[in-house]
Amino acid sequence: MNKNSFAKTPPRGWNSYDYYDTNVTEADVLVNAEFMAKHLKPYGWEYVVVDIQWYAYNTATMRDRFQYIPFGKNEMDEFGRLIPCLDKFPSSVNGAGFKPLADKIHALGLKFGIHIMRGIPRAAAQNHLPILGADVTADMIADPSSIAEWNPDMYGIRDCEAGQKYYDSILELYAAWGVDFIKVDDICSTGFHPHRSYGRRHEVEMLSRAIERCGRPIVLSLSPGPAEVSESWHYKKYANMWRITDDFWDNWETLLYMFDRCEKWQDHVSQGCYPDCDMLPIGKVGKHFDQERDTLFTREEQKTMMTLWCIFGSPLMLGAEMTMLDEWTLSLLRNEELLRLENGRFVSRQVLRDKEKCVWASVDPKTGEHYIALFNLKNEEQLIFVSREECKVMFPDGYFTADTEKMVEVWSQNLITVNNDIVGANVKPHGTALFHAV
Amino acid sequence: MNKNSFAKTPPRGWNSYDYYDTNVTEADVLVNAEFMAKHLKPYGWEYVVVDIQWYAYNTATMRDRFQYIPFGKNEMDEFGRLIPCLDKFPSSVNGAGFKPLADKIHALGLKFGIHIMRGIPRAAAQNHLPILGADVTADMIADPSSIAEWNPDMYGIRDCEAGQKYYDSILELYAAWGVDFIKVDDICSTGFHPHRSYGRRHEVEMLSRAIERCGRPIVLSLSPGPAEVSESWHYKKYANMWRITDDFWDNWETLLYMFDRCEKWQDHVSQGCYPDCDMLPIGKVGKHFDQERDTLFTREEQKTMMTLWCIFGSPLMLGAEMTMLDEWTLSLLRNEELLRLENGRFVSRQVLRDKEKCVWASVDPKTGEHYIALFNLKNEEQLIFVSREECKVMFPDGYFTADTEKMVEVWSQNLITVNNDIVGANVKPHGTALFHAV
Amino acid sequence: MNKNSFAKTPPRGWNSYDYYDTNVTEADVLVNAEFMAKHLKPYGWEYVVVDIQWYAYNTATMRDRFQYIPFGKNEMDEFGRLIPCLDKFPSSVNGAGFKPLADKIHALGLKFGIHIMRGIPRAAAQNHLPILGADVTADMIADPSSIAEWNPDMYGIRDCEAGQKYYDSILELYAAWGVDFIKVDDICSTGFHPHRSYGRRHEVEMLSRAIERCGRPIVLSLSPGPAEVSESWHYKKYANMWRITDDFWDNWETLLYMFDRCEKWQDHVSQGCYPDCDMLPIGKVGKHFDQERDTLFTREEQKTMMTLWCIFGSPLMLGAEMTMLDEWTLSLLRNEELLRLENGRFVSRQVLRDKEKCVWASVDPKTGEHYIALFNLKNEEQLIFVSREECKVMFPDGYFTADTEKMVEVWSQNLITVNNDIVGANVKPHGTALFHAV
Amino acid sequence: MNKNSFAKTPPRGWNSYDYYDTNVTEADVLVNAEFMAKHLKPYGWEYVVVDIQWYAYNTATMRDRFQYIPFGKNEMDEFGRLIPCLDKFPSSVNGAGFKPLADKIHALGLKFGIHIMRGIPRAAAQNHLPILGADVTADMIADPSSIAEWNPDMYGIRDCEAGQKYYDSILELYAAWGVDFIKVDDICSTGFHPHRSYGRRHEVEMLSRAIERCGRPIVLSLSPGPAEVSESWHYKKYANMWRITDDFWDNWETLLYMFDRCEKWQDHVSQGCYPDCDMLPIGKVGKHFDQERDTLFTREEQKTMMTLWCIFGSPLMLGAEMTMLDEWTLSLLRNEELLRLENGRFVSRQVLRDKEKCVWASVDPKTGEHYIALFNLKNEEQLIFVSREECKVMFPDGYFTADTEKMVEVWSQNLITVNNDIVGANVKPHGTALFHAV
Repeated sequence: MNKNSFAKTPPRGWNSYDYYDTNVTEADVLVNAEFMAKHLKPYGWEYVVVDIQWYAYNTATMRDRFQYIPFGKNEMDEFGRLIPCLDKFPSSVNGAGFKPLADKIHALGLKFGIHIMRGIPRAAAQNHLPILGADVTADMIADPSSIAEWNPDMYGIRDCEAGQKYYDSILELYAAWGVDFIKVDDICSTGFHPHRSYGRRHEVEMLSRAIERCGRPIVLSLSPGPAEVSESWHYKKYANMWRITDDFWDNWETLLYMFDRCEKWQDHVSQGCYPDCDMLPIGKVGKHFDQERDTLFTREEQKTMMTLWCIFGSPLMLGAEMTMLDEWTLSLLRNEELLRLENGRFVSRQVLRDKEKCVWASVDPKTGEHYIALFNLKNEEQLIFVSREECKVMFPDGYFTADTEKMVEVWSQNLITVNNDIVGANVKPHGTALFHAV
Repeated sequence: MNKNSFAKTPPRGWNSYDYYDTNVTEADVLVNAEFMAKHLKPYGWEYVVVDIQWYAYNTATMRDRFQYIPFGKNEMDEFGRLIPCLDKFPSSVNGAGFKPLADKIHALGLKFGIHIMRGIPRAAAQNHLPILGADVTADMIADPSSIAEWNPDMYGIRDCEAGQKYYDSILELYAAWGVDFIKVDDICSTGFHPHRSYGRRHEVEMLSRAIERCGRPIVLSLSPGPAEVSESWHYKKYANMWRITDDFWDNWETLLYMFDRCEKWQDHVSQGCYPDCDMLPIGKVGKHFDQERDTLFTREEQKTMMTLWCIFGSPLMLGAEMTMLDEWTLSLLRNEELLRLENGRFVSRQVLRDKEKCVWASVDPKTGEHYIALFNLKNEEQLIFVSREECKVMFPDGYFTADTEKMVEVWSQNLITVNNDIVGANVKPHGTALFHAV
Repeated sequence: MNKNSFAKTPPRGWNSYDYYDTNVTEADVLVNAEFMAKHLKPYGWEYVVVDIQWYAYNTATMRDRFQYIPFGKNEMDEFGRLIPCLDKFPSSVNGAGFKPLADKIHALGLKFGIHIMRGIPRAAAQNHLPILGADVTADMIADPSSIAEWNPDMYGIRDCEAGQKYYDSILELYAAWGVDFIKVDDICSTGFHPHRSYGRRHEVEMLSRAIERCGRPIVLSLSPGPAEVSESWHYKKYANMWRITDDFWDNWETLLYMFDRCEKWQDHVSQGCYPDCDMLPIGKVGKHFDQERDTLFTREEQKTMMTLWCIFGSPLMLGAEMTMLDEWTLSLLRNEELLRLENGRFVSRQVLRDKEKCVWASVDPKTGEHYIALFNLKNEEQLIFVSREECKVMFPDGYFTADTEKMVEVWSQNLITVNNDIVGANVKPHGTALFHAV
Repeated sequence: MNKNSFAKTPPRGWNSYDYYDTNVTEADVLVNAEFMAKHLKPYGWEYVVVDIQWYAYNTATMRDRFQYIPFGKNEMDEFGRLIPCLDKFPSSVNGAGFKPLADKIHALGLKFGIHIMRGIPRAAAQNHLPILGADVTADMIADPSSIAEWNPDMYGIRDCEAGQKYYDSILELYAAWGVDFIKVDDICSTGFHPHRSYGRRHEVEMLSRAIERCGRPIVLSLSPGPAEVSESWHYKKYANMWRITDDFWDNWETLLYMFDRCEKWQDHVSQGCYPDCDMLPIGKVGKHFDQERDTLFTREEQKTMMTLWCIFGSPLMLGAEMTMLDEWTLSLLRNEELLRLENGRFVSRQVLRDKEKCVWASVDPKTGEHYIALFNLKNEEQLIFVSREECKVMFPDGYFTADTEKMVEVWSQNLITVNNDIVGANVKPHGTALFHAV
């Protein structure tokens, strides 16, 4: 198996976190999956991902004090492998795990993903549970000094053969369930030891090996960010996606910061290797954080976000409760001229960036088809322009040979004529003009 | 109770760690206590301290892999309070705890101390044990993200009333046992979060409060170092001793570094408040680290160490297995002219320090009795001298009014005449000349 | 000479900076000196200090672009020693330097101080000027990589004999002029190399040596802060005052922060050794910063500031243009019951501090006379109290033996009765109650 | 002009520094240029670069004290532009500058480069020299707080129009001289402010703009390293080469470290954009550092260095005095099968790296021609192997389609047969096997 073939274009799907936090149930997942199958699947949206603490009971009952209940009740098998909480995922009864849910999602033509924390449950270590396929117990592979600063559930795993066996045993289980995607948390940037934020790279390697051994092409997504640019080789060799910032939410500052991160990561996007801008907090979000709301992003900001994610080549994971999406938001997610940027044939580069504006260009080197995005980072409308010559020199010779006279602005569908090699537009505050030429 | 009256001069005693590591037994403690009572007590040595993991079984059985066995078996009562491991401390049977041992030590005219890790056992949190006197269980007061990097036994305690109850409950137990001294570890400088190494100060305050409440004058010693000089006010308000370096062992580099630390801490020594230079690794040490050996310090270095500790005003805690002490080493520990520096009446100041030498002066401002120490930091013998004028200006007006003509060198008992206000001597490599005048 | 006898109590005076910036003239200095002689000298105010760039021409003419004009015209003798700019200090004509001005100030019964940047003028190095008394030129002693980040005038001096000669040569000049006080800048905390902010300590030693050699007791004041607590020994051995924060101005945040710094430095105040809280920005300030204003501090905040400075033991340097002081402000500066705290006999300690309040106690151990200050750090009025027992334990045995029944609140002159050992008061927002008992 | 077309493959040439330090003369340069023209030009070596302080007199006369004489005599025109020191470059007489030398080098069919420090001479600022084409003087554009920590000659230039004029004026001069290459120092990583090592990026932009304006295609090389990977976009937009480590010399540790840096920079090599591994310290080096020697690298290490530089795609700049090169060293520099890796058609990736070994693969995606390099990082000989499948997945789909049966080992010219997709060899300590298949 070649992990770069698991997801030939940036994964596109839905993740339960932004709306449901730790509290998503089987019913919630299914209703969203059905919506996706019906309304978004034709546009390439296919992953349905159950986020954090699906194994935990009583989640969100102590929200005023704890985001994650310390030493709470988690469902676990005799080998220290977490399995779904029966209160939230009743079909998991009798050891079925996520198989029944995954089957239903597959039947809709979709793919099924789950979130995990790296490591082995703290309770497994404390109780000396046996490791499947190894002759040691959990206390011997759990590293008592490797914890997540923000989540109390797990210990990191030592770099040893028996530790690998544990990762093998969970991936074997996930493969049996039919899992297509795992989002592994507290691994890409760990809160402890800020001076070595990618200090658990051996656990990434162990996960990668376990995926290979399980025989199922399971996409490996690493969280949270910021990933370190200087470690790009390692992420690319072992993983499929890795977060390039800390959690992204619906405020302009985090969106503005993403321009900086995309600049730094732009040379590292390739088939099977996707720097990840995180979930799209649009539509309705925040319910189980006790902050149910419509996204705080303006429409211009949403267009800017979608354009940046697509021209950069990020995975697209919807954070909204999908059944409550309005038509306008849906139109963002079904804009084929925009999504085309992620078909795997385009190469993109930032052309310029300062405090007021940013310009990206993208080209299919085989055909010359190209896009130019003009982003307005100011709070006021402004005229932004760029010469195509300036775009050209950001690419290898012969890539960007644009000489069309006409371009279409994707969001407005206005047709413009390129004069003197200059592409320009008046762009609204925090908004974007995206020009496309075939 | 005023904690500054618990130990009116720097505590002087013995600690099991340097020789026994995690493995000291009741018998070992008693034989050392008897030795101390007979040979050292007349010289002010009185504390007998049982160091780390007295509650743990099978200690040192996995030394090739672990200094501290992760998730090992620890003796604990129903309230999550650690009690002595019966294999090592058989008199603890039937819930007696350390009382029988403490009684014997008290009967010898000595004081009894124990080491603890800050916090509550991880197993207590995992098993939701009740907290004595509070209506919550351990999982609610244990902070799952507060661990020692180097020891797997405990979780830190949250800053809350129920957390205070836990500390109250253990101090109540220690008071009942007759404990006179606790050395609390992973609290003065915590390995995690190097940017806020004194980040658990609320646990120091809780311990201090718990001592007050227990009604027994228990000396509070904080470990490990380096304590931060800028936090001196806090240490002084709440504790009796605090380590000023990381673990001190028998090599010249750590001794040399102590000169730097003593310079920085010299203004913070007062009754009940003792910056701590750590144990004296002399005589036989290292047995249960599988490195049993005579101290690697030369005799000159041992004299230097003893002189620095005493003129600075550090607690003196012997690391050696006492029953194996030779006469020469014993003479170090019974040198009354040296130990006199720690009688609580002297004020000491570093006079000068560079890469080659260091000079300290100490004076009893009431009587004018004074000492001048000349330390040779070089690998070669050298002549070191200082004018008493230079010493004088390091003290408040009227403190150091030395004008005696004669001084005695403490180690050699040579008498010298002070000419032109200059005190000097040829000092051996890494050695010390200590002059005394009444 | 013993530098600790140069200023037996914390220096008290006036500094031109807060009002005049780089632009003070001889006439300005004289009118302020005369005011001081008449109105403040009886209360111990005696230093008149000319602050930065007295040697520079055209100061403040390019304020919109530069605080300090780069490579501007500076008055200098043939040995690279800066002398007063004739435009601002006409009496300096014919090589008289500051002598005529110093003479006038001395005639008023006051002392004269000047500000200098450490090092040698950049122009002297570039022009290879000779060093008085040495056989090398300035280019050989100037360190081209040692500059102030914020001022373009000087290069630091290398640690060598010829470098010492340069410092000797300027101190000789200052002694000849009759200078009593030098405030040396960019030396206590240097902006470059934040990881070794006290990296120019050899220049402190050279200055100290030069003062000794010049034979005149010149107070050595180091700027800017924050000085590092862990370097206290060095400051105390070589200097008389050193700043414990960056520049202090009239806003509450910098005043609030001073409580933190005073906590950390409290054990380091002694005769001749004064951690320095910086100038008092009260009355009229800011004129030559183009921000002439009445201090932004409320009256309560001014009382808090004065109380903290005095109970801590800081030097008191007035920043106001004195001739414009109003009666209320003058009363602050002539409050003998307050200033008494700085008579050299009191020892002070912080008793407690949290986010809402702070308590200090001060005692003359010889007589038992004592003060207790209650500081309200909140934006609302609150009741603050403390037990004298709690104050007592912050001091050595026998220092604080307060058992008076009555205390006077210094600012209001209200008499209170101490019940049950408790001292308390309602204190206004950002205000202070200061109790005094004889 | 498109800066990416200035050097379509990594520049290859000679630099005077490693052998001559600050002391190279016109005669030295010419004899080396002649050697290059005759012996190396056919293999693509063409740049002849005069390194640091060609404008300075008396260089190396105070070597025991200074690497660079502070405030020494530098040749300069009336506009503060440095021109060659006549003692070292006599043909510069009468304002000819480097033109006569450049002409001779061009006549040999070679290109001419010079080293400069960023900024404007300190003396120009001190003396208020006029800026050509601007109406301000040097003191107004020189930033007195922007200096090189290690070199005393210059001040950085402020980000302003008049500052741009100065850079324009020097590039105009260099263009008139016929300069083809500038190596700008203290700009890629600045010693001051370690927390913002690329803090002078506006000077890079100004230099880039000045090159465009001068109309001559002058290669822009930035020094010293380490460049920051996260700033790659900026380097690539404005410069042609940038150093990825600090100075590289002939010891194994710096070579070993280069493997780490090449891993991190591998995605950033493209036409006109060359991360730079620094000069090749082979043959005779070190003369004017008073350490004339044959390179300390073993032959195996030299082969490893050449292979890494070539497969990574670094510029190749010879540090040796060329006229003293032996035949074996010359053979390294004329190995066409090796140098072919830098023909601009190959794409290279690190395949694996651990403490013992490293493997790189390189492929011309148009033809399938490929190389595999096996590097032995150990001190002992070892067998190293890799599967071509593992190489394949490091590249985009369809790039690496290697299925040849035979490969040639470049250094030994041994022919091997690839069995089961495995390429392997016994590799000597610190040595390399480089396999090539067409």
